[in-house]
Amino acid sequence: MTTVGVGMVGYAFMGRAHSQAWRSVVPFFDPPVRPVMAALAGRTGNEVRAAADRLGWASAETDWKELLRRDDIGLIDICTPGDGHAEIAVAALDAGKHVLCEKPLANTVAEAEAMVAAAERAAARGVKSMVGFNYRRVPAVTLARKLVLEGRLGTIRHIRAQYLQDWLSDPRSPWTWRMDRDRAGSGALGDIGAHIIDTAQFITGDTVAGVSALTETFVPERPHPDGGTARVTVDDAALFIGRTRRGATAVFEATRFATGRKNSLRIEVNGSRGSLAFDLESLNELWFHDGTDDGETAGFRRILVTEPSHPYAGAWWPPGHVLGYEHTFTHEIADLLAAIADGTDPRPSFADGLQVQRVLAAVQDSAERGSGWAAVEGS
Amino acid sequence: MTTVGVGMVGYAFMGRAHSQAWRSVVPFFDPPVRPVMAALAGRTGNEVRAAADRLGWASAETDWKELLRRDDIGLIDICTPGDGHAEIAVAALDAGKHVLCEKPLANTVAEAEAMVAAAERAAARGVKSMVGFNYRRVPAVTLARKLVLEGRLGTIRHIRAQYLQDWLSDPRSPWTWRMDRDRAGSGALGDIGAHIIDTAQFITGDTVAGVSALTETFVPERPHPDGGTARVTVDDAALFIGRTRRGATAVFEATRFATGRKNSLRIEVNGSRGSLAFDLESLNELWFHDGTDDGETAGFRRILVTEPSHPYAGAWWPPGHVLGYEHTFTHEIADLLAAIADGTDPRPSFADGLQVQRVLAAVQDSAERGSGWAAVEGS
Amino acid sequence: MTTVGVGMVGYAFMGRAHSQAWRSVVPFFDPPVRPVMAALAGRTGNEVRAAADRLGWASAETDWKELLRRDDIGLIDICTPGDGHAEIAVAALDAGKHVLCEKPLANTVAEAEAMVAAAERAAARGVKSMVGFNYRRVPAVTLARKLVLEGRLGTIRHIRAQYLQDWLSDPRSPWTWRMDRDRAGSGALGDIGAHIIDTAQFITGDTVAGVSALTETFVPERPHPDGGTARVTVDDAALFIGRTRRGATAVFEATRFATGRKNSLRIEVNGSRGSLAFDLESLNELWFHDGTDDGETAGFRRILVTEPSHPYAGAWWPPGHVLGYEHTFTHEIADLLAAIADGTDPRPSFADGLQVQRVLAAVQDSAERGSGWAAVEGS
Amino acid sequence: MTTVGVGMVGYAFMGRAHSQAWRSVVPFFDPPVRPVMAALAGRTGNEVRAAADRLGWASAETDWKELLRRDDIGLIDICTPGDGHAEIAVAALDAGKHVLCEKPLANTVAEAEAMVAAAERAAARGVKSMVGFNYRRVPAVTLARKLVLEGRLGTIRHIRAQYLQDWLSDPRSPWTWRMDRDRAGSGALGDIGAHIIDTAQFITGDTVAGVSALTETFVPERPHPDGGTARVTVDDAALFIGRTRRGATAVFEATRFATGRKNSLRIEVNGSRGSLAFDLESLNELWFHDGTDDGETAGFRRILVTEPSHPYAGAWWPPGHVLGYEHTFTHEIADLLAAIADGTDPRPSFADGLQVQRVLAAVQDSAERGSGWAAVEGS
Repeated sequence: MTTVGVGMVGYAFMGRAHSQAWRSVVPFFDPPVRPVMAALAGRTGNEVRAAADRLGWASAETDWKELLRRDDIGLIDICTPGDGHAEIAVAALDAGKHVLCEKPLANTVAEAEAMVAAAERAAARGVKSMVGFNYRRVPAVTLARKLVLEGRLGTIRHIRAQYLQDWLSDPRSPWTWRMDRDRAGSGALGDIGAHIIDTAQFITGDTVAGVSALTETFVPERPHPDGGTARVTVDDAALFIGRTRRGATAVFEATRFATGRKNSLRIEVNGSRGSLAFDLESLNELWFHDGTDDGETAGFRRILVTEPSHPYAGAWWPPGHVLGYEHTFTHEIADLLAAIADGTDPRPSFADGLQVQRVLAAVQDSAERGSGWAAVEGS
Repeated sequence: MTTVGVGMVGYAFMGRAHSQAWRSVVPFFDPPVRPVMAALAGRTGNEVRAAADRLGWASAETDWKELLRRDDIGLIDICTPGDGHAEIAVAALDAGKHVLCEKPLANTVAEAEAMVAAAERAAARGVKSMVGFNYRRVPAVTLARKLVLEGRLGTIRHIRAQYLQDWLSDPRSPWTWRMDRDRAGSGALGDIGAHIIDTAQFITGDTVAGVSALTETFVPERPHPDGGTARVTVDDAALFIGRTRRGATAVFEATRFATGRKNSLRIEVNGSRGSLAFDLESLNELWFHDGTDDGETAGFRRILVTEPSHPYAGAWWPPGHVLGYEHTFTHEIADLLAAIADGTDPRPSFADGLQVQRVLAAVQDSAERGSGWAAVEGS
Repeated sequence: MTTVGVGMVGYAFMGRAHSQAWRSVVPFFDPPVRPVMAALAGRTGNEVRAAADRLGWASAETDWKELLRRDDIGLIDICTPGDGHAEIAVAALDAGKHVLCEKPLANTVAEAEAMVAAAERAAARGVKSMVGFNYRRVPAVTLARKLVLEGRLGTIRHIRAQYLQDWLSDPRSPWTWRMDRDRAGSGALGDIGAHIIDTAQFITGDTVAGVSALTETFVPERPHPDGGTARVTVDDAALFIGRTRRGATAVFEATRFATGRKNSLRIEVNGSRGSLAFDLESLNELWFHDGTDDGETAGFRRILVTEPSHPYAGAWWPPGHVLGYEHTFTHEIADLLAAIADGTDPRPSFADGLQVQRVLAAVQDSAERGSGWAAVEGS
Repeated sequence: MTTVGVGMVGYAFMGRAHSQAWRSVVPFFDPPVRPVMAALAGRTGNEVRAAADRLGWASAETDWKELLRRDDIGLIDICTPGDGHAEIAVAALDAGKHVLCEKPLANTVAEAEAMVAAAERAAARGVKSMVGFNYRRVPAVTLARKLVLEGRLGTIRHIRAQYLQDWLSDPRSPWTWRMDRDRAGSGALGDIGAHIIDTAQFITGDTVAGVSALTETFVPERPHPDGGTARVTVDDAALFIGRTRRGATAVFEATRFATGRKNSLRIEVNGSRGSLAFDLESLNELWFHDGTDDGETAGFRRILVTEPSHPYAGAWWPPGHVLGYEHTFTHEIADLLAAIADGTDPRPSFADGLQVQRVLAAVQDSAERGSGWAAVEGS
């Protein structure tokens, strides 16, 4: 049995989710390369050791660079805030380690470009890289893409996507690094807006070509956990209209102020032959309208995406036994390990991540210029 | 019992809907002024006579101007395409007849302004005017406005509205006057976009201040019912982002190409204390999230808006017995008759209609200028 | 144009609903026989005259027998409580008047049998009779039956039906005649249980052959509107399991104590090839699972039953414009008038009503014998 | 850190689910006693070794009795078909091992009684036992019980529960041990009917006192995987009405023939003050109607049960990040380990399992006697 040692950097929300995926991939997907949870890296010794013990990592490091030096580690999983991605990823790839990097790929287009360059250098040596847009691996989302690729929607005319959360709706919610432009790059835009951009592009196989955008910061100052207040230097909400390369219209909205919407990533796609709708709060469902159904019984079908014939679902439970949020990471890792074994290039690639970054940059550019049209670079 | 003679112009879709409302208002609302369905006007004698007979009008006229000359008629109900609204309404008001005019008020801002001027002149003489944004009178929509006005949503942060239809999704669907800019003014924008603008503004008590927009015509030519093809000179879809006068963000989309969506007017409003969601395909339901509910049981409530305490509902049936599309017209007429009896000014007024027209104009202006920002005149 | 004069007895809830249907049938269905709303009968002169005026009846009578004597009246519409049905219907039929009788047909099987005998005598003379199970004419329900008849569900295995209301959930809700066994025959069972029995049998084309039942009266005494309290001599809830003639299982439940359920008539049918689900609170929707859909995209379809190809829907509005509760009565009357013109026998017939009555009797019999099995007479 | 060695018997569907739970309980629940996945037992050496390797068990045994002899094992997890439960559980408890036993507790009341006796003997020595009705630990279900216990539903009047699957709807689906009365005890009744009985009783804190039932076997013979056909000696569907000890009515239905329903465990409870509804296909949602809400905004609330204040949810992800089917087993095991640490008695106990068995026995008894009433023993 081939194995690959994994070193993970960061053990907050994303680190916990990835750990569960590294633990779960063998029993459910029996990957051709088995991961060994070798080391967890973090800054504070006692904390990282406690986290490693609880999350199932065999050792702990207080300097991520140490992971690159270890021969038992062949893959680096980056779960830090966005401002650390570029440095770690480039160093890891240059050290010959496969890299899985959380999204968004970077905080700026320039960083993302450097990462893509490193990924290309590494690829030439058989070293793989992948960016963690995990929602591509929601079975319903993967199925949605399949239906579009098979032509069951015909020509795509409309994309509308929303990512609605409400955790900042209360002005008393405390300040975190996610509200700091230097750490997070942007607010709702990069955190959750990036997800709907990637997911919509993944489903449709199309890309956003140009946008007109606006952003808003409703609460400019928030209580700091250490006392006093801190300035919010990112957007609370970002919205834009746009056109895709192939001529569909698009509407996107990302917000942390949609009271009562907890994690509602909604995508609806209308084509000349059919339509799709998805809401992450109902993760196991895909709604599909087949325009070729007879008129008498046509209607949006609630597909419970838990059948053996559905993407990923057969690896888990019998039909109707639903999956949850973290399963998407297991799917992601299963595909990454398969690509490592096969020698193929896993997707979403760093280039995919860069393209999303360029859409984000166009959105910010348009928003800063009073919603004037901004073409997406390279599209 | 006071009565008012009604003369209606036009007997297509809207004329049929209004006729049912004129017939139904007495048994259910017992209005202080009873309408008498005096005359129906249309161009073709035998057709208008047949329609009058079937729809319950006591007489028929082939020239709408005749209605203005008749002493037994005190109210003109205009159900013609938009290009005829201004002439008929101004003449009727100047002749001292109350006017109910279908939406959109007119095809251009200039026409709408002339109509508002006529309405003001008429109002000074006690003559009433109203524009038919009937969805204000969906009980769920009226209730939504009430909740906003009572402060149960707090400060409004987000408005997102869609009006999705699919009757043009098929390129073989025939050309009609609704695809002709001269007759219809615009396409999806004025026909259904006007509805979501009015409804969203009605619910929130706020107005759109500026927009960035794009429009699209997917199918530029369609088969003409008389043979050959005809050019589509209006938009198939219109979408825009914007800001309201009080600082909320807004996203609007109107399309006739959303395959599988038949008449889906959806509005969602997020405020600092709560949220609302509505879909016209589920006309009797309002979804309300009360942010002051305890965290353990908070959730969007499906309010079935059929209780005696709900707007209009008590006039009809016991709780749970649902209403349909045309009930909104009965509510509209009941309110108009009450205003005539009370001497108050019915809403939506022609000025309200003009304001919607100005938003439509800003949308077209922005769309024609590559999505550049367009302020709404007067806001 | 052939016409038929209509005389209606009773003007409470059902009378108001029927009046709206008599008013609406001409504009929307253009029936071959036009009804003339000739007279309304009720006990109290000033009240019946006021009701006639408001509901659109040309005259008023204080004795229903007078309607039978009038030559201008050819059809009697019975909207009284169940204890009056048999006398009026038999007399009307014997007087050569067509009869539309509200459901349940009667309060006892014996009365119903007498009514069926009268209907058969009358039919021999071309006089028509119909019982008002109006939910057969919900377009979604009519479509459901059509799909079953076409074999799209295959062999029916399961029927589950509920009629859930909550208007008696509060023990302080006042006593009405509906709680008096002498007037109403039974409680939830005959009032709403009859509806689900008829609707389920109509959809499946099958009949209940035997049942095991229980009934319950949660609140045995209620405040009387005139002061004091009155005994509740009917069931608050009735539930039963059963088998149909063709071998399906059935579960039925009718209650006025389902807090929060206002008028939730739900039916679900599972067959070897497909399934159907319906909820009257979402009257315009039928859910259909087509077992022959490919496994990847199979799912319950939400059919919005408002297309021109759907039963009754084309007579009203364009697709997506929803219908309400009272439209079912217009459909019923349109079909009755068509049958009178055609000389065919309208359904549901009095015999259909008797069959439902026999199911109700079996339910009561089983409930009174500690849930022992009770075969339905004649099945 | 205290630990407990775990030995698991069986590695089919339930064994895979339990393994994932044993792996996941430490990172998410940090239990006071840490489980060590010591050994997996199965009949076939190479198969059980491969399963142990993949599922994360440190060793494999081909005789479950060996697990009882091992000092490093303190807890036996029984995931075999029902006919093996009693022997293993009694032996394990008598050997001083804690026992987690899958549901239904046994195939007969007699076996279940023997198991309860063993559990009581063991309890006296501090040895714990638990039966695996995992749906009690769906956060929405646990929350439902909490709301009932807090009185937010008032007096319970109605319980209606369905467990709808369709995997036998096709007569060509092959025969398995689940269709053999000797192995499985019963069909839909014991497999999924047991779940709705336990879940409904858990939520309401009430128990079924008597029933009237029927069962059906639609397809009496099925293709055997080894060729030929085999007889189905269990029910395909089971349904019953009943009364609870405290006076509520109950309707239950369990079937494997509900085409299109994959794993739809639905429970609805109506009380004098409120109602609850749940569907396992939408595992993260609880619908709650609070009858004390003001009439204008009352409605069923869709509670997304993913808040930190909700049962179990806080251990996983931020609000809105949904859980899946197998999380229920992790919750079960977390509670079992907590009980072992605390010295308290975990629930559902073997006595709880026996009580469910007695309801099942009453259902079978009634069904065999033509649906005559059957009191539940001990209630």
